[in-house]
Amino acid sequence: MKIIRSIREMTAYSKTQLAAGKSLGFVPTMGYLHDGHAALMQQAIRENDIVVVSSFVNPLQFGPNEDFERYPRDFARDEKVANDNGVDVVFYPEVREMYPDQPSVVLHVTKRVNALCGKTREGHFDGVATVLSKLFHLVSPTRAYFGMKDAQQVAVVQGLIKDLNFQVELVACPTVREEDGLAKSSRNVYLSPQERKEAPVLYRSLKVAAELLEKEKNITLVKEKMVEYVETETSGSVDYFEILSYPELEEVPFSGQTMIIALAVQFENARLIDNLLFTHNEREQ
Amino acid sequence: MKIIRSIREMTAYSKTQLAAGKSLGFVPTMGYLHDGHAALMQQAIRENDIVVVSSFVNPLQFGPNEDFERYPRDFARDEKVANDNGVDVVFYPEVREMYPDQPSVVLHVTKRVNALCGKTREGHFDGVATVLSKLFHLVSPTRAYFGMKDAQQVAVVQGLIKDLNFQVELVACPTVREEDGLAKSSRNVYLSPQERKEAPVLYRSLKVAAELLEKEKNITLVKEKMVEYVETETSGSVDYFEILSYPELEEVPFSGQTMIIALAVQFENARLIDNLLFTHNEREQ
Repeated sequence: MKIIRSIREMTAYSKTQLAAGKSLGFVPTMGYLHDGHAALMQQAIRENDIVVVSSFVNPLQFGPNEDFERYPRDFARDEKVANDNGVDVVFYPEVREMYPDQPSVVLHVTKRVNALCGKTREGHFDGVATVLSKLFHLVSPTRAYFGMKDAQQVAVVQGLIKDLNFQVELVACPTVREEDGLAKSSRNVYLSPQERKEAPVLYRSLKVAAELLEKEKNITLVKEKMVEYVETETSGSVDYFEILSYPELEEVPFSGQTMIIALAVQFENARLIDNLLFTHNEREQ
Repeated sequence: MKIIRSIREMTAYSKTQLAAGKSLGFVPTMGYLHDGHAALMQQAIRENDIVVVSSFVNPLQFGPNEDFERYPRDFARDEKVANDNGVDVVFYPEVREMYPDQPSVVLHVTKRVNALCGKTREGHFDGVATVLSKLFHLVSPTRAYFGMKDAQQVAVVQGLIKDLNFQVELVACPTVREEDGLAKSSRNVYLSPQERKEAPVLYRSLKVAAELLEKEKNITLVKEKMVEYVETETSGSVDYFEILSYPELEEVPFSGQTMIIALAVQFENARLIDNLLFTHNEREQ
C-alpha cells in the first residue's frame, strides 16, 4: 500500500491509473478509521480496480467552537485499517498542503442545509463541499463512497455532484452499527462508560419512530414522543429529532415518499447523530 | 464540426477523446464570437489535439440590473467563426440544460474581487466561477484559454484552478485590438458612431499611464491625470482607473512588481474595459 502526502504525487498517480483505463474508487475520510470506514473500503474494492482512501481532518468544516483541535487522530491505526482492507493508496496530506493559504474560492451550499446538523453547524457543509471538490479534482475518482450515517452529507454531496456536473458516481453505503445498534463513529470514544450504555437508545428511538409513524401518521406527535423518550432514557439532550423528505430535507406531510428520521443528541463530550430512511409501509437502511 | 447541445453528449465526447489519449483545448465564451475569440481558438488549435468552444450566455454572472436579456446573441455567426477557425466542437447548451433548477451549490470568490469590475458587479465572479466549474467538469480540458482583456477574470480563474486543484492549465492570451487600438469586445456593437470614434482613447490612456508611471513613480497622481484625460477626450464617464498589483489586485506602492493598469468607462449603452500589464522599466502585453 502506498502512502501519498503530496498533491503532486496524488494527481500523478491518478493520471497514470486513469490513462491505463483503471476504475478508481475513493473513500474520503477524516481518519480515525473504524468498521464503518472499512465497510466503505470493502465495497469500493469490490466495485473498482484501484481504491484510494483519504485521511484528512478538514479545518474548513469545523466551526470556531467545534472540535477541530481535539478531533481524534491516529495515523498508524488508519494505515493499518486501510492496509488490512486491501486499499491501494492512502492520501494523507498536511493542512498546509491542502490549504497553503486561505482559498480564494470556496463552495457555498444553498439547499439541503437549513435542516438537521446544517441548522446549527453554520458553514459546515460549505467546508465539506470545498474539500470534496479539491479531493475529487486530485483523485479523479470513478466512484466515491459515503456512509449513510451522515445522511445530510450524502444529500448535499448528491447535489454537489449533480449541480456542478462532477463526473463521479456517488455510492451511499448503509450505516455500520455496534451489536447493540449504536452507529459506529469516531466520536464514540468521547462517551463516558455510562453514556456508552445509554447510546443505543438513539437507534432504538428511530425504529420506534418508524413504527409509530406507520400507526399514527402524525409527524409532530411522533417527534414529540421521541424527544421525550430519548431524554428520559439517556443523560443526553436532544439537539433535534426530525422527520423530513429525503434527499430534499424539507418538512412535508406524511405520505408515501421517502422520509428521513434523524436525530442528534448532545452528551457531555460527544454529539452523536443517527438516522433511518423510511418509506410508508416499508423501512429501508 | 460537431455542435453539442446536451450535457450527456458533451461528457461522452470528452471521455472518448481523453481515453484515446488526446489533449483537449477549451475556449469558454458567451458567444457573439469576434477576432479576440478567434485568436484564442487558433492558439488552442496549435497546442491541442482537439478544441472545444462553448457558447453560453451564463445568467449567473449577470446582476439583476445588467444586460443578460439584451446581451448580443448570434449562433449562426458563432458556428461560422468556430468552423472557419477549425474548431472540433461547439458546446451550445440551453440555460435549462445547464441550470435545470437553482443550483444547490455555488462557488464564492473571496479574493481578487474587491477591485476593478468586482467592486460594482457583485456576485459576477461567483457566477463566472460556478459556470466554469461546471464547464471544466463537462469538457475535462487539458488547457483552457482566456483573453487578457478580462484580466480580473484571468486572475480569478488562476485562483479557482489553483485553490480547488482543477487539473487544467490556464492559458492567458493577449488582448486582440482593432487597428486603432480599441480592444475587441462583443459589447462594442452598443457604441454610437461618435462613441466608437472616441473609444481608442481608453487604450491610449493606458499607454500614457505606463509612460507617466515610469517618469513620476506616483500612482495616485497618474490615476487622477488619466481620469481627467479620458473624461476630457470622450463622452464616457470613468467607472474606475486603477493601478494594482497583478494577479492579486491589491493597492501597493510603486515598485518593480508586475502591476495592472486598468479602466472601465461607461458610455451611453456600453461599459467598456481595458487593461495593460506593466513592469517597471518594461511593458508587457
